[in-house]
Formats: sequence, structure tokens, C-alpha cells
Amino acid sequence: MSRIILTGDRPTGRLHVGHYVGSLSERVKLQNSGNYDEIYIMIADAQALTDNAEHPEKVRQNIIQVALDYLACGIDPEKSTIFIQSMVPELTELSFYYMNLVTVSRVQRNPTVKSEIKMRNFEASIPVGFFCYPISQAADITAFRATEVPVGEDQLPMLEQCKEIVHKFNSVYGETLTDPEIVLPSNKACLRLPGIDGKAKMSKSLGNCIYLSDEADEVKKKVMSMYTDPNHIRVEDPGQIEGNSVFTYLDAFCRPEHFEQFLPDYKNLDELKEHYSRGGLGDVKVKKFLNNVLQSELTPIRERRKMWESRIPDVLDILKAGSEAAQKKAAATLHDVRSAMKINYFDADGLENDYK
Amino acid sequence: MSRIILTGDRPTGRLHVGHYVGSLSERVKLQNSGNYDEIYIMIADAQALTDNAEHPEKVRQNIIQVALDYLACGIDPEKSTIFIQSMVPELTELSFYYMNLVTVSRVQRNPTVKSEIKMRNFEASIPVGFFCYPISQAADITAFRATEVPVGEDQLPMLEQCKEIVHKFNSVYGETLTDPEIVLPSNKACLRLPGIDGKAKMSKSLGNCIYLSDEADEVKKKVMSMYTDPNHIRVEDPGQIEGNSVFTYLDAFCRPEHFEQFLPDYKNLDELKEHYSRGGLGDVKVKKFLNNVLQSELTPIRERRKMWESRIPDVLDILKAGSEAAQKKAAATLHDVRSAMKINYFDADGLENDYK
Repeated sequence: MSRIILTGDRPTGRLHVGHYVGSLSERVKLQNSGNYDEIYIMIADAQALTDNAEHPEKVRQNIIQVALDYLACGIDPEKSTIFIQSMVPELTELSFYYMNLVTVSRVQRNPTVKSEIKMRNFEASIPVGFFCYPISQAADITAFRATEVPVGEDQLPMLEQCKEIVHKFNSVYGETLTDPEIVLPSNKACLRLPGIDGKAKMSKSLGNCIYLSDEADEVKKKVMSMYTDPNHIRVEDPGQIEGNSVFTYLDAFCRPEHFEQFLPDYKNLDELKEHYSRGGLGDVKVKKFLNNVLQSELTPIRERRKMWESRIPDVLDILKAGSEAAQKKAAATLHDVRSAMKINYFDADGLENDYK
Repeated sequence: MSRIILTGDRPTGRLHVGHYVGSLSERVKLQNSGNYDEIYIMIADAQALTDNAEHPEKVRQNIIQVALDYLACGIDPEKSTIFIQSMVPELTELSFYYMNLVTVSRVQRNPTVKSEIKMRNFEASIPVGFFCYPISQAADITAFRATEVPVGEDQLPMLEQCKEIVHKFNSVYGETLTDPEIVLPSNKACLRLPGIDGKAKMSKSLGNCIYLSDEADEVKKKVMSMYTDPNHIRVEDPGQIEGNSVFTYLDAFCRPEHFEQFLPDYKNLDELKEHYSRGGLGDVKVKKFLNNVLQSELTPIRERRKMWESRIPDVLDILKAGSEAAQKKAAATLHDVRSAMKINYFDADGLENDYK
């Protein structure tokens, strides 16, 4: 059986280092592993509109930003199909049919939906489209016959809902849809990078993100302002590692060779942490090291991004070609779905056949 | 402004005399009035699937039955576009975008949804698709830019929901959608024809319907078994008109000329009712009259139906051509909708334009 990946992002802002360590770098690895027959990366504009219906311009503007971030990170359009969700209308038709196979109370019980609703302060005024997005995600995943879906652990309930829809569809209409499996990130430490202010989540509105498109001096400024251990006042004080954003970032980004290059007094991160814990190591020194590590990771990304920024028509061509390829794939699945449901009235085995 | 009608039926069974007096005969009148520029009559298979997801064959089988009933009643494919809902995938995409403009609690408050849920004993296990059908109906109505929607009074809340969606869309994205008006049936007495057993609603499962496709002898048998006044035991007893199905059917079907033709002892229905009320008029006589009235109405319908039954390939061609015309119209509306939402990324005013 072919191995197929579906993954993607909502285009509601430029992508940041949290996206990078949490999913983008992983995707590039999967892409370059040679283990996959098809990889679909979706810019989920239609999903973004479910809670941004009144701000379509925000979604529109960020489509190119997200595409640039993808290309900057090393997503290769020769190996991965980057597409825009709303350019594949078959997805809405699949959603429509799947909606008949899921009860309202089942969606209400979905823990991810529950927490997303809470996060957005929706309460009583949840848009129906937002409420239904687990079903829409099932359409996205199954349309491409994805066998593997790389997401964070918090998205596990979404994938379970998708699998339920697949099983229900196949049991009602006969074996048609592909049952997907979740692929959790290999580096669990990277799952959730905190904001530079120490807050659990990076968010544009909090202004606590380091973006992949940030200039070198912006990155440096942000690193030097990062939240550390508020009780670590003098260099000689013992410092705390846990909850210290600078060390969480180092966990995510630094590799042994970075010490050789930027901080040869230490062999590895454990030694650095140990010194910080016992006292005698200042925040500035650690931050400078983190800055060097980040710059070495982000500089090639930023340079590739600038290159693509000067080639917007090519980026648009990539999105257009990707969307066309994705549309073709989804149309083939939809054809199978309609045949299974026997609503392919004008096909060879359609109504004409019933009345021969 | 063009005057455009959208109307239709769920293909879950053959149509019966209740449909005929409640809507079909009205549609034929509207069609032949010459007052409308476009008339779309939808066989709502996708909507039928929202509560028949596990029985798609039931829906499939009834598509032709409903089409035959339409043609039998005088719907003229030269004047009205008969189409199959699921052959117009644009409707699902419109629904998808409208779902972002309606809250879950708003749908929950819709009285029609409430009563339909109750009628189907769904309670906690409402399929999401069924729950969303007011939104899907708004897509149907607006896709064809319907200015008028002929429905029963019980559907008023559905049309209100549609109007809300139109207003919301137009206020968020700019004037795009057409605001529809409800057209109530001219003959209010006909709105709800009871079953032949006197039960308020005709239903296949209760076996209390007279179908448009019933043979003459079936119609007669059903009429002669009809529920009347259970206290009207002897001919000389006074009889009750209210709740007496035979008289409700006469209210709906009989015209003064029927008396001349079949029951010249009475001038009109009022005289007949008066005699029945005061006593001395037997049920059998009234039923025989109703049978004559019904036969004179149903015979030409049955004959046209038989003619079309012998021409199924032509019926399929009508459905195919109608669905193509409907699809074209809906695609034009969807194009306007996508432009208004600015998700027309690859059009002339798309993303390329943003980065010039």
C-alpha cells in the first residue's frame, strides 16, 4: 500500500519557531526520508475561515506567507504537494456526506473541540462551521487517502473522530475510505515551545513569537529579552532550568556541534544546565549562546525565504499546480465515495442501469 | 429584477395527494402563470440522506418516482428546471461557507429543526448533517438567486434563517446574495391533508396515503375505507364535519362543477355539509362522491405518469439536462460568493494582483 501523508496549517499568521520545531522540521525530515509515496501539505484557508469569517483578508494575506515559510524550511514542491484547501471544493462535498455519519453529541464530546472552543471564548456562540471542523478534517485526511497524519498529541481526538467516520462509512457503504494513523513527532521535547515571555503558547496577539521571517537583529533582540528564572538575579545565584524558556529553546534547537562552534567551554547541554543550576553562570552568556544556535538554524531558512519572496509568481505557480494536483486526487476519492453511496446517478452503473 | 422560484421535495417516497394539494398543484399554477423568469424544482436527495444515511438505496429509488410524479402533475421541463441536488456540488461549498455565519445555538433555537428532531425521535443522536439542514437549505435557495420560495407556513422559520444568512453574508462580504421571500399557498385549507385514517399526517409507514401513482381501484378502496365521524352510525344520525377526513378532502379537491357532474342533488359543498350535519346523509354516498371527484382529478395525472413511465430514458435526460442547467447557475453564484469573500485566489483579482 502507498504511504501518504496529509498535514497543513491554518493561514492566520506567519509561521514561527514553535511551528518549526513542532512540525515543519519534522515534515521536511519525512519528506526527505524517501519513505512516502505522496505528501500533501494543505494551507487550510477554509478551516481558518471557520473562526475568522469576518476577516477573510487576514486569511488571504497569510496564504503567501505560509507558502513562503514552507519553502523556506525546505518543503520541496517536487516532493510535496502544497495546496490551498478552498481550491479543492471536493472537500466540502465529502464533509457534507460525513456530517450525516456523526451525531451532534459526539462532536460535543470531542476534547479538542471542547478546548478549542474554550480557547476562543466562543461558549454559546460557536459558529456551526467551527463546531464541524473535526468532520471537515476527516474529509481533508480521507480525500487524499492519507495513511499517516503527523500531528501533535493534542490532536489525537481529532484523528480518532476521523477514524470513526472512516469505519462508519466503510461499514454502511462498503470498504471505500483509507484508515489513517497518527504520527507523533520524534522529538517530544519540541512539541510545545513556549513564548519568549515564558507563556505556554506563542501567539501573535501576545507578541511573544520568533518568526521564521524575523531578521537576524530581531531574533537577537527577542532572545536577549527572553524569560528565564526570575529568581536568578546575580550570576552566582543558582538558576532554575525548569520553566526557563531559554533552556527549553536550547532543548529544542541545540546540538553537540553548537558547543564546539559557539561555546567550547562546555561539552554539551547537560554540562551547561548543571553549571546554571549550581550558580555562577549568567543569563546573558546563555542567551548569547542560544542566539548563535538560533541564528545558525534560522539564517539559511531566512535566506531561502528572501529568495522565494523575490519570486512570488513562481510561488503562486507552485500553489496553483499543487492545488490542481490535490483537486484531482480528491475528485478521484469523491468519485469512489459517490459510487459507494450509489448517488452516482449518471454514471455507467447509475439510474439508467436500474431501469433497463 | 428577475423573479425566480426554488422549491422541491425529499425523494423518500412516491408523492401523494397531500403533496399535490399542498404544493404540487400550486407549483404548476405558478409555472403556468408566466410571472416567473426561472423555476428550479429540486429533488433533494442530499437533504434526504441527512436522516437516511444508512439507506441511500431508498433515496436513489425514489428519485425517478418523484420525477415521474412531477411530470405527471404538469411540471413542464420546458418551463421548470427539475434537478437532483447532489448533482450540484456547489451547494455543499456554499453550505460550508454559510456554516461560519450561523451559531450552533441559533440552529438549536430554530422551531422547525426542533419539531423535526422530535418527529424523528432523534433527541441526543441527531446527525450533524440533519442538524445543519437549515443552512443547507439557505445554500439551495441562494444558489439559484431565488426571489420566492413557495412553502408551507411550518417552514417559515427555515426561510427566516435563510434570510438571516443572506443579511449576515451581505453585511460581512458586501451585497452579494439575493434576499428571498416566502410564498404561502393560496388555498390555506389544503395546507395539511390528513391521512385516510384521520391521522394528522400522511405517512408511508402508517399506510394512510393516497398516492398519485395509485391505480383507480386502489384510490376507490382507500376512499371507501376513509375515516369519517365515528359517532355517525345510522344514516339518520347527525354527522360531524370537523375532523371528518372525507370532508377535509372534499374541501381540498371539489369544485362546484363536480356537483353538476356527479351529485346534481346538491348545488355545492355547503349544502352537502349541511345535510350531513343535520342527519339523513350516509357516509357511503359522500365517499362515492369524493371518489368521483378524486378520480376526475387523478386520472389525467395517472395517465401522464404511465406515459412517462414508458419513457424512463427521456426522464433521465430531463434530470440530466436540468441538473446541468442548475449546476451552471449555482456555479455562477458561487463565483460571486468566492469573489466577495476574496478567496478567488487565482482569478484576475486574485493573489497575483496583491503582489504586483
